[in-house]
Parts: sequence; C-alpha cells; structure tokens
Amino acid sequence: MSDAQVTSRRITRVTRDGSASAEDAIAVERALEIRIAGRSLAVTLRTPGHDRELTLGFLAGEGVVRSASDVSDVALRPGACADEPDVADVTLAPSTPLDWARLERHFAATSACGLCGRAHLESLRAGLEPVDASFRLPAARLLDWPDRLRGAQAAFGRTGGIHAAAFAGRSLEPEWLREDVGRHNAVDKIAGALLDAGRYPVGEGVLWASGRAGAEIVLKAARAGIPVLAAVGAPSSLAIELAEAARMTLIGFLRDGRMNVYCGVERLES
Amino acid sequence: MSDAQVTSRRITRVTRDGSASAEDAIAVERALEIRIAGRSLAVTLRTPGHDRELTLGFLAGEGVVRSASDVSDVALRPGACADEPDVADVTLAPSTPLDWARLERHFAATSACGLCGRAHLESLRAGLEPVDASFRLPAARLLDWPDRLRGAQAAFGRTGGIHAAAFAGRSLEPEWLREDVGRHNAVDKIAGALLDAGRYPVGEGVLWASGRAGAEIVLKAARAGIPVLAAVGAPSSLAIELAEAARMTLIGFLRDGRMNVYCGVERLES
Repeated sequence: MSDAQVTSRRITRVTRDGSASAEDAIAVERALEIRIAGRSLAVTLRTPGHDRELTLGFLAGEGVVRSASDVSDVALRPGACADEPDVADVTLAPSTPLDWARLERHFAATSACGLCGRAHLESLRAGLEPVDASFRLPAARLLDWPDRLRGAQAAFGRTGGIHAAAFAGRSLEPEWLREDVGRHNAVDKIAGALLDAGRYPVGEGVLWASGRAGAEIVLKAARAGIPVLAAVGAPSSLAIELAEAARMTLIGFLRDGRMNVYCGVERLES
Repeated sequence: MSDAQVTSRRITRVTRDGSASAEDAIAVERALEIRIAGRSLAVTLRTPGHDRELTLGFLAGEGVVRSASDVSDVALRPGACADEPDVADVTLAPSTPLDWARLERHFAATSACGLCGRAHLESLRAGLEPVDASFRLPAARLLDWPDRLRGAQAAFGRTGGIHAAAFAGRSLEPEWLREDVGRHNAVDKIAGALLDAGRYPVGEGVLWASGRAGAEIVLKAARAGIPVLAAVGAPSSLAIELAEAARMTLIGFLRDGRMNVYCGVERLES
C-alpha cells in the first residue's frame, strides 16, 4: 500500500494494556526544488503529487507568474536518491519578466513557507487587493462540505495526518481537492489548478482548508482572488485583519453542522 | 477578556437553524522582529508572551547562540502601532562570534519558519547530532500527558485554536508548557526556556507537541538534545527519517490512552 503520497512502516502501538507491532500508513514528505531556467529559486517540503500545480501556484503566490501563458514549460524529474530533492524546472515565456535580484531580496526578507513563519507586515499587505465584492452564497450550502469532502480525502483517510484544500466556484460544487503535509502547499496546488485552468485570479468561489486559518492561507486566497475562505479550525487575529483588508469572508470552525463567520458575513445569504 | 494572547471579537455563528451574533475568543498573532545589535535578522509571526524565550530558542535553533552566556541582553519593546512589529533586540556577549554573511546566506537558502517550509536537505541534516542514547522512560507515563496538559493550555481552552509544546525532564513531570499559533514558535519557546535554565542542549526528557510531528519539530527537538518527541498528531515520512538520523524516539497520535511509536522504541520500558 505504498505510493507517491502514502508509504507504510512497521510501528509499535502502545496502550495501557501493552504494546504490539503493527503496519501503519505515513504521509510522504519530500523536498521539491523549484528552479527557473535551471537556477534554484526555492525548496519546499511537500507531499508528492500535483507538482506542476504546486509549482505554478507557488510562483503565482510569489508574484512571479500571473497566468498560465507566463509559463512555457514545467519539467518535473524525481531526485536521484532519497536525500536529493525532486526538481520542477520552470521555463518562463519569453515575455515574462523576471528580476532575480528582487526575488532573492524578497525571499531573504519574507523567509517563510508562503509567509507562514516570518514576514515583514508591509510585505504581508503588499499586493493585497480587495476580492470581488459581488459574490454571494447561501450559508447553509457550506455546512455540508465537511461530510462531502471527507470522502475525497484519500490520503487523510489512510494516514490520519495530512492537510487538504478544496475549491468550488460559483456552483459551489467542489472542483478540486488537494492533499499535502503542508497546508500552504495544498492551497498552492489549488492556486496552480486555477492558473492552469485560466481562472487565476478567479474572483468567485470558496476555498476550504483543513486545520487552522492562519495569515498565510488568507494571503494566498486573497492573491488568488477567492472571496470566501472556510477553514475547519480557528483563525488567528492577524488572519482576520488580513481578510478584512482584502474584504474577504473568513469562516472558521466549519464542522459538525456549524461555522463561525469572522468577517464579510454580508456575502452569506440565508 | 482581552489580553496579550487572546483577544475577543463579535462574530456570527451559523447553524442549520439560522445564525446569531456572539462574542468569540481569538488567538493573537502578531509580528516580532528579532534584531541583533539593532540589525534586523528575522520577523516571526507569533502569539505574544515568553518573547525572550522565543528569541533565545529561535537563535539557538539557528545556531547563533549555544548557551545563555552567549547573550548579554534581550531588550523587548512593543510595536508603536498594530502594523509595526514588536521588537526583540539582542545584544550578544562580546565573545560570541556572529557571521552576518553566513547567517543571511543561511536564511536565503533555508527560507523557512524554523525549516517548516523550504529547506535544502543538506541543511536539514546539518548539525543533526545523535541525542543521548541512555535516556529511558516507562511508556505508560506518557499516556497520561494529554489529560494532564489539557488543563494547562489556557489559551487553547478559550480559543480552540492555538498550538502548544511542553517539556519534561528525567522526572517526566511537565516543567514548561508554551502556547503559540505557530507550532514551531511554541517549540522555540521551550528551547529558550531550556537555554535560560542552562540546560541547552538538555540530553534527556520528552518534548510534547500539539498537532502533527513535522520535520521542523523533529529538527528543533534534536538540536535541543531532547531524545523523545511525542506529538498529538501524525508524523510525516521525513520527520521519521530525521528522527532516525538523530536516534530520537518519535511518537505520534498520543491521545485517548494510546500512542504510536515510529522509531526509537528501545527507550520505552514497559
């Protein structure tokens, strides 16, 4: 039962009654190096799968590309051994500008996995344009999502330990669900899917995310033009501040038939 | 009920029966800029509190300081406004070497919140020395931790959305519990507490962490010389590989009176 996303391992299960050996499923975490024209830009620790989408979504989030036509090719190749990262080598379209010096300054300054860790607040708010204000949805439709999405979380079902993100457009039918040990990677994979579909920034729809709604997830949703972010867990104070700045709707604790709306409640119709 | 770690906000609670306004408690996330001799080294998004420990633990994890005597002073001051980071300005002891060029190359290369996001694998394994092999503990003692620690998680009890880390030495009595929206920050606060107590690297004991056991938490535990990492959630494949390389004991799914041991089971006595 080993594949690219899930591996298996012999472990010891301990209870008050004693311990026993067992086979367990583990979410795979491996390094992917993102290169542009052969030059290393970043290395991300991710769960393999949808690496093209992850790469495109990462580059879109960093402002390097704005549409699928900015990219000529994404060449994927596995690392030669366990310690060597897999590689996604991106060829930009000849017309796509790239300022390495600015980019490297940006990475040195923000120094974060999609801004989750360290970031200057100015750069957090930079480029945070308000999302579309006209999108509306019936609140009750979102309450069904946890049950509907659970069945689609294949790797979570096996490992119990992997994040997921999903997107639905105006129809509110989930279009993509992506899993990754890194929540920010799962969201990047959704952003990449939107980009590949010619729908980035999308201007409508809902991004669902497992776990907490941290500042970095709000930023990625805002940059992808997704007006509604609905998370299974709690938001932080900064996530709410950034969602308000982008005029998004931020929902938390979406589970067990209920949810909390932290800002942008006017988008939800009863 | 607002304080440095938890703020309150009027939200809308939605259920299938309708919606209602309510007051909700939110975990605070604010930027802290870490400076050395006035020069900016990094900005981390963290939950305020124990900022000296966070700063020391962060610097220890990055290899900048190795003991409390490497630091003359940590001056903390709040940001002037909501958008301006709080500042921790560190004065190193005159004898503590600091190579800014190496440090900035390191940040540019690893570019991660304590390595959670992007990192070259070489730098992941660099400096990963095996932890003490002689430490042993009775497995059953750990099964009580979830109940014992839950009561100490003050901010979690109010917000339902903040990570925590705790440490116990040879006695297996939890000595410190620290909370933060960033799991890596909570672990840095524990590392800083060890450093301040003159016990870094500690060479014994257990680090407990809420949430999943990612690669970055294993690395921070290994650098702090903590032989056992016990997480509430699942480990990733890379977390297990790194724990094996450091000869640590890695435990996951520590909850509901059970746990899974992924490596280093020889430290656990029945």
